[in-house]
Amino acid sequence: MMNIQIPVTKKKRIVIIGGGFGGLALADKMCSEEFQVVLIDRHNYHQFQPLLYQVASAGLEPSSISFPFRKNFRKKMNFYFRLAEVKDLLIEEHTVVTSIGNLSYDYLVIAAGTTTNFFGNETIRKVALPMKSVEEALTLRNTLLLRFERALDCSNPETKRSLLNVVIVGGGATGVEIAGAISEMKKYIIPKDYPDLKKDELTIYLVEGSDRLLHSMSEEASVNVLRYLTDMGVVILLNKRVVNYESGCVLLNDGQSLPTNTLIWVSGVIAEHFNKISPELIGHGGRLLVNEFNQLKGYQDIFVIGDICLQNEDAYPNGHPQVAPVAIQQGELLADNLERMLKGLPLMPFTYKDRGALATVGRNKAVADLKKLKLHGFMAWIVWMIVHLRSILGVKNKLIVLINWVWNYITYDQSVRFIFKSSPKGHHYNSR
Amino acid sequence: MMNIQIPVTKKKRIVIIGGGFGGLALADKMCSEEFQVVLIDRHNYHQFQPLLYQVASAGLEPSSISFPFRKNFRKKMNFYFRLAEVKDLLIEEHTVVTSIGNLSYDYLVIAAGTTTNFFGNETIRKVALPMKSVEEALTLRNTLLLRFERALDCSNPETKRSLLNVVIVGGGATGVEIAGAISEMKKYIIPKDYPDLKKDELTIYLVEGSDRLLHSMSEEASVNVLRYLTDMGVVILLNKRVVNYESGCVLLNDGQSLPTNTLIWVSGVIAEHFNKISPELIGHGGRLLVNEFNQLKGYQDIFVIGDICLQNEDAYPNGHPQVAPVAIQQGELLADNLERMLKGLPLMPFTYKDRGALATVGRNKAVADLKKLKLHGFMAWIVWMIVHLRSILGVKNKLIVLINWVWNYITYDQSVRFIFKSSPKGHHYNSR
Repeated sequence: MMNIQIPVTKKKRIVIIGGGFGGLALADKMCSEEFQVVLIDRHNYHQFQPLLYQVASAGLEPSSISFPFRKNFRKKMNFYFRLAEVKDLLIEEHTVVTSIGNLSYDYLVIAAGTTTNFFGNETIRKVALPMKSVEEALTLRNTLLLRFERALDCSNPETKRSLLNVVIVGGGATGVEIAGAISEMKKYIIPKDYPDLKKDELTIYLVEGSDRLLHSMSEEASVNVLRYLTDMGVVILLNKRVVNYESGCVLLNDGQSLPTNTLIWVSGVIAEHFNKISPELIGHGGRLLVNEFNQLKGYQDIFVIGDICLQNEDAYPNGHPQVAPVAIQQGELLADNLERMLKGLPLMPFTYKDRGALATVGRNKAVADLKKLKLHGFMAWIVWMIVHLRSILGVKNKLIVLINWVWNYITYDQSVRFIFKSSPKGHHYNSR
Repeated sequence: MMNIQIPVTKKKRIVIIGGGFGGLALADKMCSEEFQVVLIDRHNYHQFQPLLYQVASAGLEPSSISFPFRKNFRKKMNFYFRLAEVKDLLIEEHTVVTSIGNLSYDYLVIAAGTTTNFFGNETIRKVALPMKSVEEALTLRNTLLLRFERALDCSNPETKRSLLNVVIVGGGATGVEIAGAISEMKKYIIPKDYPDLKKDELTIYLVEGSDRLLHSMSEEASVNVLRYLTDMGVVILLNKRVVNYESGCVLLNDGQSLPTNTLIWVSGVIAEHFNKISPELIGHGGRLLVNEFNQLKGYQDIFVIGDICLQNEDAYPNGHPQVAPVAIQQGELLADNLERMLKGLPLMPFTYKDRGALATVGRNKAVADLKKLKLHGFMAWIVWMIVHLRSILGVKNKLIVLINWVWNYITYDQSVRFIFKSSPKGHHYNSR
């Protein structure tokens, strides 16, 4: 395999795997002249995951919540981006093996995040629609719209019900948000766009394994969200697990069977896996065990940040929640620590500053667990919008998202209802 | 095959194949209570083709130049849309065979447009990038960006040149516009996003078979556009035909060979083909012969409008130019004629009102052949923008296109540089 063509200099080379919240925060903050930074990602853009569900439900264009890495890092010196898939780590050789060649490193930062956990069920992996990337969200949008189109000409009532039923598995923030968005489509879009479909032919099920929705938020938030979604007509099944998908039906552990062609799977994540990392370094959820400086246990030169790492802090004995703020704070601290290392200063340990959690289910409806305050309804919804708008990269993106939100709010219209398909032609990732 | 589930009423059923400029203008204008209108299209949206090249060159999002049919026709009574591919016409049975079932008609309107003409060359069809749909434009965007990414790590200079050379075949408006847009990417984007690529490693070739660009416009426009593109560094090859694509090279009829992995093919169109239409009814370019009322020769109940029809008017003995205004005017006239038919009034013959032609090659650079006036440069560019902005469907789309244009103009930045891939999962067009 050839090497990736990046100049070899006297600077220490830091290779970052993954440009999610953690990797991006780190790369953004690195500014020492003494380092060469290489970011590797399988996409050429950073994606703002909290709004993926709005892409999936035709409220926003994918470009509005994405930002090209090359544009973000234009003014950065000694910075390199490579669009590639990491295939393997050769830890002894200090080398990353990618789809486009090998790359050696002085310091490695693994910020590869997590992927959807299908709990080993191959059937579900094949039929289910996950929602971890812009492309998966687009696939969900395409699929959902195509189901409505096909239901129109379906004369068999059972097949029709399967086309129109939506089963969402996983009652965390993503599950709750997509359930809300699809039930708004049902209420505002279906009657106008598909007057021949009867509204009650479309049922949205939300299946959660534990005894409440938004398990990581307060009881109060759970109660409010349950009430909102129930009012919106979502059928909520708590304490239920999906055991299989057979002959067009989702089977639950209590024997219940839900006929559907649209199985949305947001029920859990598992850390991205690297072959050469010894099993003793892998903890719960496939997460890599790190010390308080985010160093992989036993290594001085390999760091792991974000959702993929498992770090025990006194307040979080089972690891931090797998959310953006943890990744960002770890990335920022690591930027400081790498520069401290260079100067021979002691490293600083990580402490998570939790600013709260938010979730929305639709217009005027949200829940917010802030530091000293729990909100729900309109106020929480406003807070939700401000927080998200502020966090999206790029002034133009903020502007376009805002226009879309205002537009959709006034017109009750999730307006990007397009079925677009596309892929590059000819040369792919691993050819050159 | 089952039938498409559309209510059978006493109203006359008009089936329109294709929701391009012609089909849309017709459907929009039909308002008689006496007709039931069914529009069939293989996409669920109308696409504004004149701006496809801006999608392909990462200047606009596909959604900004598309508009969902269902949204457009929401308030229309007796109107039905079906997402389907037309497979066959059973003229004797008054029936259209589609991927989702059969549909009978009282009147049939064929507005299916044209497709890219590869002149029977299978190799070229496989490797070339056409640009007739939003999805093809997205594929071109993805491909172009991926080529730049891959060129970075290419150590073989010949392979690298192939990755970076772009060959555009066809010097009509689309060819000229995409040549201009890619040369702006070369000038403004490459040096900032890919500082490791040398600008002169990327060459854009524009190959045209005739002796001038923009053959359908004035000599003056051709001269100005030739000058603009030459100044922008585009290599223009006139009086040259592509004969084949072999071992990574485009072969021209004079023996010249241009190494490239990116062959953009906008060199000609051929009318969409329907098996059951007798060869005597097919004219030049596969176009269907119609009379002055757009009736397919020999048929009272089949109409053909837009690019796919060939109508001889005194001023246009070889048929009208295949442009949007002809299609729109024919669609509008046909709406009137169908209602006249119902009332027993004589049909009105078609006369094309030519309002001129426009083309742009980049910032401040355009040519306009108006009725009494020929413009070029900044003024023509302003006219071009106003005309296009007015023609795009939807207030929000106009607003977002305008924001993008202003933004790109100020920042010299074609900003949606994303490689997105996506397709619906499971059920496809012809399953249900």
